Amino acid sequence: MPVAPLPKALLFDVFGTCVDWRTGITKAGEALGQRLGLPDTNWAAFADAWRAQYQPQLTSVRSGARPWTRLEILNRESLDTVLADFGLQQVPATERDAFNLAWRHLLPWPDTVAGLHRLKTRFILAPNSNADIALAVHMAKFANLPWDVILGAEVAQHYKPQPEAYLRSVAALGLTPHEVLMVAAHNEDLVAAGAQGLQTAFVARPLEHGPGQTADLHPAHAFTYIAHDLHELAAQLGA
Amino acid sequence: MPVAPLPKALLFDVFGTCVDWRTGITKAGEALGQRLGLPDTNWAAFADAWRAQYQPQLTSVRSGARPWTRLEILNRESLDTVLADFGLQQVPATERDAFNLAWRHLLPWPDTVAGLHRLKTRFILAPNSNADIALAVHMAKFANLPWDVILGAEVAQHYKPQPEAYLRSVAALGLTPHEVLMVAAHNEDLVAAGAQGLQTAFVARPLEHGPGQTADLHPAHAFTYIAHDLHELAAQLGA
Repeated sequence: MPVAPLPKALLFDVFGTCVDWRTGITKAGEALGQRLGLPDTNWAAFADAWRAQYQPQLTSVRSGARPWTRLEILNRESLDTVLADFGLQQVPATERDAFNLAWRHLLPWPDTVAGLHRLKTRFILAPNSNADIALAVHMAKFANLPWDVILGAEVAQHYKPQPEAYLRSVAALGLTPHEVLMVAAHNEDLVAAGAQGLQTAFVARPLEHGPGQTADLHPAHAFTYIAHDLHELAAQLGA
Repeated sequence: MPVAPLPKALLFDVFGTCVDWRTGITKAGEALGQRLGLPDTNWAAFADAWRAQYQPQLTSVRSGARPWTRLEILNRESLDTVLADFGLQQVPATERDAFNLAWRHLLPWPDTVAGLHRLKTRFILAPNSNADIALAVHMAKFANLPWDVILGAEVAQHYKPQPEAYLRSVAALGLTPHEVLMVAAHNEDLVAAGAQGLQTAFVARPLEHGPGQTADLHPAHAFTYIAHDLHELAAQLGA
């Protein structure tokens, strides 16, 4: 097990690591389709397509091509694109606004809430997500995610995996990078955090992308901690 | 009682409203004096003097005379000034750094923690303080203040009572001003919040400045809510 000193704070990736975005968006789409009488739609594929808009949208901000824009605004724009791609242009704007809020109402993985409460007794817990504050706080209220503080893209004014997205969250806590542990189900996120000096914990989420998931099934690097869920991570951290 | 619709989120002033800074700083000073064998010092007067540096320090940032500086840095500078004023120049720098952390270790008023937990079941709770994130989150961990998110000066990059200190906290929540209730023991804070369209709640803290307190003993305006403590406020809000 790790020889690193215990961290003082834990930062968490949220989408995929703490909450199951694919199931949540799929179910919200199915409910919308039924209610509006929409044509038969593969809503899981819709969820994947919506999520696939995420990186190109963030890249447009990371590159400076557009000024700082919070994730809920980007998601709302992406929704218009994906609805058009799926031939669902008839969905009215007010329904689109409501559908976009499904990202606030995602459900946690079975171990998430209990694991976080256990870790909270010993460490400062914060999301370090690309979610903006409004999205993160409403999600936390809905899903009972017991954050001590909400950090991440909006506080840092940078999207992961840019270095500032990690370093400004660490600085906001008044800590140094090696005092902070980044927890994620994504190798890329942890490699970027580790490059800035943070400790890293890989927690596999093999169903994030559905039954056919191929990426991020295993840790690809020697991260500080490797755990199957947040209970196991808590045990490793003595919480 | 108020005819305003129930708010969705409550913002709290912290120093004086949630925690008893004067007693905390006084006791930390007394402990320091004993440990270092300092000359007899009126540590309550010292606490008042340290706090009296607060507004001139904030004004230097508000006016643009100096760039954004977080409160713990300002407090640390003020400490040097006050130690000199009290003839205590012999206190070494490491002890000054540690004394400055006493602001993270203040105790809540007797009703604060239970009242906040009660309000948290129904509303989003956030400090909207001039404290920076690090100070606020460490204080919350120490005193068991169950914030959902930490807002305030550092997120807004403006110190109260500047309008941005209220409006940017409201915007960060994805809410409108009338959906948010500012809770404070200080008339000036509430007047400034109300001027930006927030609902307002006055909670008297008649011992904040010690037994001789003369200011803020009573609400000076028709605030949305007026309560003697956070339990009474929770009852008024149906929580």
